[in-house]
Amino acid sequence: MQLELGKLPKRALIKNILSRIKVSDDVLLPPAFGEDGAVITTKGNIIVVVADPITGATSEAGWLAVHVNANDVAVHAAYPKWFISTLLFPIGTKETDIEQVMDGVIEALSEVRATLIGGHTEITDRVKEIIISGAMIGEPMVDNKYITSGGAKDGDAIVITKGVGIEGTFILARDFKASLLKKLDEKVLNEAMKLRRMISILPDVEYSIKAIGIENIHAMHDVTEGGLLGGLYEMAFASGIGFKIYEDKIPVLKPTKEICSVLRLDPLKLIGSGSLILAVDPEFADDLVSYLMKNKINSAIIGNFTKKYQKEGIIIKRNGKIIRVKDAPMDELWHFFARSEY
Amino acid sequence: MQLELGKLPKRALIKNILSRIKVSDDVLLPPAFGEDGAVITTKGNIIVVVADPITGATSEAGWLAVHVNANDVAVHAAYPKWFISTLLFPIGTKETDIEQVMDGVIEALSEVRATLIGGHTEITDRVKEIIISGAMIGEPMVDNKYITSGGAKDGDAIVITKGVGIEGTFILARDFKASLLKKLDEKVLNEAMKLRRMISILPDVEYSIKAIGIENIHAMHDVTEGGLLGGLYEMAFASGIGFKIYEDKIPVLKPTKEICSVLRLDPLKLIGSGSLILAVDPEFADDLVSYLMKNKINSAIIGNFTKKYQKEGIIIKRNGKIIRVKDAPMDELWHFFARSEY
Repeated sequence: MQLELGKLPKRALIKNILSRIKVSDDVLLPPAFGEDGAVITTKGNIIVVVADPITGATSEAGWLAVHVNANDVAVHAAYPKWFISTLLFPIGTKETDIEQVMDGVIEALSEVRATLIGGHTEITDRVKEIIISGAMIGEPMVDNKYITSGGAKDGDAIVITKGVGIEGTFILARDFKASLLKKLDEKVLNEAMKLRRMISILPDVEYSIKAIGIENIHAMHDVTEGGLLGGLYEMAFASGIGFKIYEDKIPVLKPTKEICSVLRLDPLKLIGSGSLILAVDPEFADDLVSYLMKNKINSAIIGNFTKKYQKEGIIIKRNGKIIRVKDAPMDELWHFFARSEY
Repeated sequence: MQLELGKLPKRALIKNILSRIKVSDDVLLPPAFGEDGAVITTKGNIIVVVADPITGATSEAGWLAVHVNANDVAVHAAYPKWFISTLLFPIGTKETDIEQVMDGVIEALSEVRATLIGGHTEITDRVKEIIISGAMIGEPMVDNKYITSGGAKDGDAIVITKGVGIEGTFILARDFKASLLKKLDEKVLNEAMKLRRMISILPDVEYSIKAIGIENIHAMHDVTEGGLLGGLYEMAFASGIGFKIYEDKIPVLKPTKEICSVLRLDPLKLIGSGSLILAVDPEFADDLVSYLMKNKINSAIIGNFTKKYQKEGIIIKRNGKIIRVKDAPMDELWHFFARSEY
């Protein structure tokens, strides 16, 4: 059966990969749907390993590759430390193209305080655009402790940081500036571009652990492809429970709201690196939000995980209507690219 | 300046990447030309991290990706332990294509006794063929010790295992079978295909350390793109010295010799995963070769590293002629693909 564009669907992933892997005892968190990293032990010490590619020849590819990998490490309550990159460039690549990618890699590594430790760089006729495959290795923030996507418990409060669709907002503002300017003020687009600075969830994780202690955070996940709903679905699936969230409680930053409204996109399904989802002991949720806000990280309690649902969730809309989420949605950005008007 | 197909040339690599990296103290072996892996410490324990991609839609891509990464770990005197894969498939990929790649990954992981710990699998319009970017993490064979490409010393004996051009031999036998059958016996091609079983240098490294102790092995490198001469050049560059080798001492296995002769290729420059190059204390070189031979790993002393040359080497040909090697050669396989007759 021919497969569709995008991340491998859950069914094919589980059939082709996850069911066929035997893992050794030193792998504490093996590959699983909804888990974006691995946790292993070497001589009793925990390390976190993640790998996520960036495709596409934008000027920010190198910078983005480091940040998405650093975020995947951070959600396991670990500091990103060592980055190893595989850079594949198409034929026609100039030295300045490589410089631009490396500038981005170095900028982002300094932002997350990690180091480039090696890799492989090649010009190849097998790719149409730049492909950056990175792997990031990290060390626990709290000695020998880690957090997964799959630890959410019945009754846990769902806290999210910053706002939904952050990454999608600045991608759209950058790539469709001319079209958007016909309907939006330039100030909105400038604000949208500034969201780029919010992409790292490393501070969100650090402050959260400081605020309520690692033992009261049961699961973490970052919002990526499929937006908030994709992230919540993956957490619910990995945790074997469900979720209930309230539309009116979900923070949507102003530029996200305006751009999504003009382009008729649902911000809840928009690619959103920069926002962290936490499943926390409900007794500590208010403390967490208040501590994050005090440290200038916008955040909100948007609902809770519940065993009332199994590997699915519901959204209570502003008008009281209930919407079910039974699978990871396709990202709004892909839908938008597929439409022809822009 | 537009760059040529293949691994980034030394000049561009050093200008664009190596000169711009600040590494932290926990990186014992930072990125450098001629070094294919990184050695880092986490809480006092050494781990080895490597990343090498495989491009191209052959049935063996998954199997090969694991082995080239495992070999890169092994040359640092480490056991490959954990593999994380990024699989990018082109549009039109079927589930059975993914199954085939995963079969190869799983087969090779079991051969080198490592585990798949995670990764990312995606169908994308940005690639023309399968791209497998793997990263492998390993642990030292001898507690807190490791070996690099750059440790070769003046006077060290150069030992190589098995024979040159092993990987190239079975690639050519597989991909050009019909053409080769016009000039060679089928038996030769079958023998060539069997060289596939020799691809791992993990046993070569294990036996070498057992034979003479890690302290008498000063540098190791595996033969990959650019063949034996590429590997020796990289070791010499990383070690800041030169080398002298004798053509008549270099082991060339029979199928390699016959296929290279028919196709007019130089086996010394043919891609050669499966062969290990060691720089060893000359007092122990005979012991090493004898121990390897006893354990059914063909090997030979082919010359020595010497400070008489700086980052270059010479080959003494059978007829006494001297040939200088002043840069990593382009692989014979790429030359061959560029010729039109096959």
